[in-house]
Amino acid sequence: MSYYPASILNLIKNIAKLPGIGEKTAERLALHILHASRKETEELSRSILEVKQKVRFCTRCFALSDSDVCRICSDPTRDETLLCVVEQPGDMVAIEKSGAYTGQYHILNGVLSPMNGVGPDDIRIRELITRIDQGKIREVVLATGTNVEGEATAAYIAELLAEHSVNVSRIASGVPMGGDLKYVDQVTLKKALEARRAV
Amino acid sequence: MSYYPASILNLIKNIAKLPGIGEKTAERLALHILHASRKETEELSRSILEVKQKVRFCTRCFALSDSDVCRICSDPTRDETLLCVVEQPGDMVAIEKSGAYTGQYHILNGVLSPMNGVGPDDIRIRELITRIDQGKIREVVLATGTNVEGEATAAYIAELLAEHSVNVSRIASGVPMGGDLKYVDQVTLKKALEARRAV
Repeated sequence: MSYYPASILNLIKNIAKLPGIGEKTAERLALHILHASRKETEELSRSILEVKQKVRFCTRCFALSDSDVCRICSDPTRDETLLCVVEQPGDMVAIEKSGAYTGQYHILNGVLSPMNGVGPDDIRIRELITRIDQGKIREVVLATGTNVEGEATAAYIAELLAEHSVNVSRIASGVPMGGDLKYVDQVTLKKALEARRAV
Repeated sequence: MSYYPASILNLIKNIAKLPGIGEKTAERLALHILHASRKETEELSRSILEVKQKVRFCTRCFALSDSDVCRICSDPTRDETLLCVVEQPGDMVAIEKSGAYTGQYHILNGVLSPMNGVGPDDIRIRELITRIDQGKIREVVLATGTNVEGEATAAYIAELLAEHSVNVSRIASGVPMGGDLKYVDQVTLKKALEARRAV
């Protein structure tokens, strides 16, 4: 690699730090950046800095936001009585893309994981309780992941909320749409059978 | 995609302009950058700008360089009588990695391509002739690609150099090492047979 001048090597090294980008890809991207227009590279460079400077957490739901209160929290058309609890901002984006949800969100920014030293005080559970105590919310949809940690977090929150006058639901588990049953794992099939519904 | 704040969307858009990076990957990289340390993002941002500011063409061989004359051209241990002509800086890097070449380079920064309006005056052929006229070079190795345009460029340069007192050679074509003959295309096999050597 030392056949390139130092500034290109430096760029390759920095790009290769990104996840899923190997040295070969980093080399290709660095050479593209070198040949791209000055305007394009300046925009790329500036947008990297800007994202660190501008993006903060929404003070209500802890989603990523350019302003104090995010767009969803400040949208008067969203159902204020419905609250969906997710692990990460990306999960919120996935649910928004589905178009099936019109309520508000609460992003935990983490998941309970005693093995990694993440307890209830390390994720936004206290803030969730505070929001519920304000009294507007009627239903909390627990949409944490369906892995061990996500299930444990959902169970923990459900237990906490039992003392509050709010309905608590969990997203359904089952066979994914378009799924071929013979490729679906046993635990999922068991869940799908248990949760079968009359048609 | 519009579920992210504007500065993240802007970063995703700029990253997705890079070759081979789709919107999904750009989203993943943007979220990584968002969560990376300030130092790491600042270094990435700065190295992108630096590469445009610092890198220029070596005034002798037209390789990418941080200084007026590149490292290879200013290296006294390299053979000054041997000159390898390649299309792009990346080709030079590939040959350097092989470790089989100790001479100097001339990077055309392009290839003859009448279909795309690239003629002899658009690539560094005139500068190549000037270097050869200086008299030090005894052999020119034509290492342009083995596709139609690379072959045409090599043939054109070979014809030009016939009038100059310099030996001209072309890199060998044949079956790649580790290649299984049944997967090698017919043109390559034909070349390999034509260029067979006594053992």
